[in-house]
Amino acid sequence: METRPNSIEDWPSRAWNLLSKLRDQSPLVQCITNFVSMDLMANTLLSAGASPAMIHSIEEIPDFTPHARSLCINVGTLSSDWLPAMKAAVVLANKFRKPWVLDPVAAGASGFRLNACLELVGMKPTVIRGNGSEIIALFKASLGASKGVDSSHESTDAMEAAKSLAQASGAIVAVSGAVDIITDGNRVVGAHNGVPMMQKITATGCAVTALIAAFVAVDPLHALEATASAFSIFGIAGELGMNMAKGPASLRMHLIDSLYSLDQVALLSHTKITSL
Amino acid sequence: METRPNSIEDWPSRAWNLLSKLRDQSPLVQCITNFVSMDLMANTLLSAGASPAMIHSIEEIPDFTPHARSLCINVGTLSSDWLPAMKAAVVLANKFRKPWVLDPVAAGASGFRLNACLELVGMKPTVIRGNGSEIIALFKASLGASKGVDSSHESTDAMEAAKSLAQASGAIVAVSGAVDIITDGNRVVGAHNGVPMMQKITATGCAVTALIAAFVAVDPLHALEATASAFSIFGIAGELGMNMAKGPASLRMHLIDSLYSLDQVALLSHTKITSL
Amino acid sequence: METRPNSIEDWPSRAWNLLSKLRDQSPLVQCITNFVSMDLMANTLLSAGASPAMIHSIEEIPDFTPHARSLCINVGTLSSDWLPAMKAAVVLANKFRKPWVLDPVAAGASGFRLNACLELVGMKPTVIRGNGSEIIALFKASLGASKGVDSSHESTDAMEAAKSLAQASGAIVAVSGAVDIITDGNRVVGAHNGVPMMQKITATGCAVTALIAAFVAVDPLHALEATASAFSIFGIAGELGMNMAKGPASLRMHLIDSLYSLDQVALLSHTKITSL
Repeated sequence: METRPNSIEDWPSRAWNLLSKLRDQSPLVQCITNFVSMDLMANTLLSAGASPAMIHSIEEIPDFTPHARSLCINVGTLSSDWLPAMKAAVVLANKFRKPWVLDPVAAGASGFRLNACLELVGMKPTVIRGNGSEIIALFKASLGASKGVDSSHESTDAMEAAKSLAQASGAIVAVSGAVDIITDGNRVVGAHNGVPMMQKITATGCAVTALIAAFVAVDPLHALEATASAFSIFGIAGELGMNMAKGPASLRMHLIDSLYSLDQVALLSHTKITSL
Repeated sequence: METRPNSIEDWPSRAWNLLSKLRDQSPLVQCITNFVSMDLMANTLLSAGASPAMIHSIEEIPDFTPHARSLCINVGTLSSDWLPAMKAAVVLANKFRKPWVLDPVAAGASGFRLNACLELVGMKPTVIRGNGSEIIALFKASLGASKGVDSSHESTDAMEAAKSLAQASGAIVAVSGAVDIITDGNRVVGAHNGVPMMQKITATGCAVTALIAAFVAVDPLHALEATASAFSIFGIAGELGMNMAKGPASLRMHLIDSLYSLDQVALLSHTKITSL
Repeated sequence: METRPNSIEDWPSRAWNLLSKLRDQSPLVQCITNFVSMDLMANTLLSAGASPAMIHSIEEIPDFTPHARSLCINVGTLSSDWLPAMKAAVVLANKFRKPWVLDPVAAGASGFRLNACLELVGMKPTVIRGNGSEIIALFKASLGASKGVDSSHESTDAMEAAKSLAQASGAIVAVSGAVDIITDGNRVVGAHNGVPMMQKITATGCAVTALIAAFVAVDPLHALEATASAFSIFGIAGELGMNMAKGPASLRMHLIDSLYSLDQVALLSHTKITSL
C-alpha cells in the first residue's frame, strides 16, 4: 500500500512551487561533467534560474564544494585523472549533507567506466539519472548492455532494474524515456512530458540531470518529487519549444528560451506526472 | 584513363542512398576530438542519423572501440596525454577493419602537432580531411605553412599536395574549400555545395569530418564516394540553411535543422559533384 | 586633471575604426581558456572578423604563440596541468610584445585559483577583465569574495578595487556590469551598452574578454580605448539581438549574428561610452 497516493499529490502545484523556489534562491550547482555537455548544462541551469559552476579541479574541491548547494557528477567523458576529483567532491557533499546527482553516461561502454560508476553509486548519490541502457548496465554490472550514449532499451524495460538499483543504493533512480520513470525502490512515478526530437540534441540527458541537481538543491528532503518536477518542467520546455522548432538545433534554442520564460499558467496546464 | 568516368556515376542517387543507409543503420561513430567542436560534431552526427560517442580515455579504448562502426580522430586541441589514446584507438580500428578518418587541424601550427599528424598519417587513415593549408603542411611536413586553424591557401592550390599525399599515404585525401576536392591520388572529384559563411562558424570543418566518418561507416569499400557525398550533403544543408540565416549563428542552427530534415527531392536537385 | 577629456574623444568613430581594422586584419588570437566557453569565444571572434586559435598544449606554445597577434588567458576551468602552459604563453607574449588579456573567472572560488590569478596578474597583463566579485577578490586577495562565476557585487562597488588593481598591476582593469567600467588606475571610462539577459547566457563574459583580446591586437598602444570599444560593440550586438530574441538561447544566436553584420550606421548611433 502506498503511503503517499497520487490522489492527494498535486503535482503541477508542487512543480510550480519548486521552480519558483529555484528562481528565488538561485542555488549554486557545482557540475563535474563531460566536455560535450558543459555549454548546454550551464545554459539550462541559468535559464531555470540556478547558478552553475563547472569546477572540476581536485585542487579546488576542498574550498569550493562546501559552498555549493548541490553537486552534479557526470561521467560522459570520464578519464582516470578526473575520477579522484569526482570522489573528493562527493565526500564533501556527503559530509556537508548537500544532495548530489549521478549521471552514469554510457555506463556499460567499458569496464573502466562501469567500475567508476559502481564506485560512485556506492557513495550514496541522492539521485541517479540515466537512460534505460545505463540503468540496466548498472543493475547488471556487466559489460555490453549499453551501446554508446544512446539508449537501446525502452525505459519501461528498465523499471525493474531501476527499482532494484534504488533499493540497493538508497538513491532515487530516474530513467529517461518516452515516459520518464522515477522511483525510490517502492513508489514509482512517471513524468509524461517531452518530445521525441529531444533525443536528437546532444546532452539533453545531461542537461536534465543538471536540472534535477538544481531542484534537489531547493528541496533536498523530497528528492523523488524534485526529480519528477525537473523532468516534467524540462519536458514542458521541450513541448513548448517544439511548437516553434524546425529541427533539433532550433528545438534546442526554443527549449532553453521556453524554460527561461515558463510561467505558472503554462506549467500548471502541461505538467503530467502520475503514479505508475 | 579513368576507370570509373563521371558520366556513368549518378552522384545524387549515390548520395541519397548513402544518407538513407546512414539513417537506417545509425552507425556508432567514436570521436576523439577537440574541445571546441564536440558539441557541433555530436549534433551533426545526430542530425544526420548517426550515433556519436565522444570517448577518448585510453582506459576505455580496448572495450569500446571494437564496438564502433568508424572512428574520427581530430587533433584540434591536441595535448601529449591524448595522443596515446588516439593511436590506441587507431590500432584497434585497423585491427577490426573499421574505417577511420583523420582531421589534421592546424597541422602546421607546431612541430609537436605536425609530428603527431605525420605519425597518424602513417597509421593508414581511410580518409584525411583538412583545409588547403593543413594538407599542404602535411605534404611539405614543414612548419609555418598553416596559420592557426583557418585556411590561408585556396583549396585548388592544394590539389597537387592532396594527390601526392593520397599516393604516399594510401588514404583518400579531402580538401575543404570553395570547391571541396576529394582524391585517391589518381581520380579527383569536386563537391561544389556549401556557402562561404560556413567558414565563419567554428568547427564546421570538424563537423564535416565527423560526417565523413559516418558515411564511410556505411560504405567502407567506397571511401572516395562516401566522402564526396558527405561533403555535398553537409554543403546542401548549409545552402538550405542560408536561405533562412541572418548570420553565422543562425546559419549554424538552420544548417543542422536542414541536415536533419533533408529529403530526397532537395538532395537530388542540389547535389553537385563532378570529376575534376 | 584628465589629460584626454571625453569632450574631445569621439568614441563612436574610434569604435568603428577599430572594428574596421579588426575586420581588415583578421588578427590571430590565441585563447587558452575554459571548456565551457570555447565554442562561444571562437564564434564571437569569427563573427567579429578575428581568427581564433584554441591552442593550449605546452608543447605547442614555443612554436605557436609568437605567431599570434594577442593572447587570451581564462582560468574558468583551471587545473594544475594547464597553468604552466598559460604562464609559458604569457612569457612569450611579453617577450614578443604582444598584448594579452586575463579573465580571472571566479577568482575567489578557491585558494588554488586565487593564487594562480595573482601569479598571472603579476606577469603584466595588458588588460584584466572580470565581474565585480572577481575584481574585488583579486584586489582583496582573499577567499570568499566570489560566489561561483556569477557576480554578487554591482560593478560600481568595484570601481575603487579596479582603480587600485590597475595602479598596482599596470594593467587596464575592466569590470563588467550594468555599466562596464574600464580604468588605467587614473582615467575611468564607462561603456553603457548591453542588456541584462546577456548574464543568463553562459560564457558571455568570456566572450567579451576574447573580443577585447582581438581589439587590443589591432591597437595595442591604446588598450583602454580598445577595451571600451570591445565592450560597447559586444553590448550593441546584444541590444540589436535583443530586438529579435525570445529568451537567452535566441539572444545568444542573434547577438552573434548582429556582431557579424554590425554596420557603421548602427554602431555610430548606439555606441555609448563616457568618462566616469
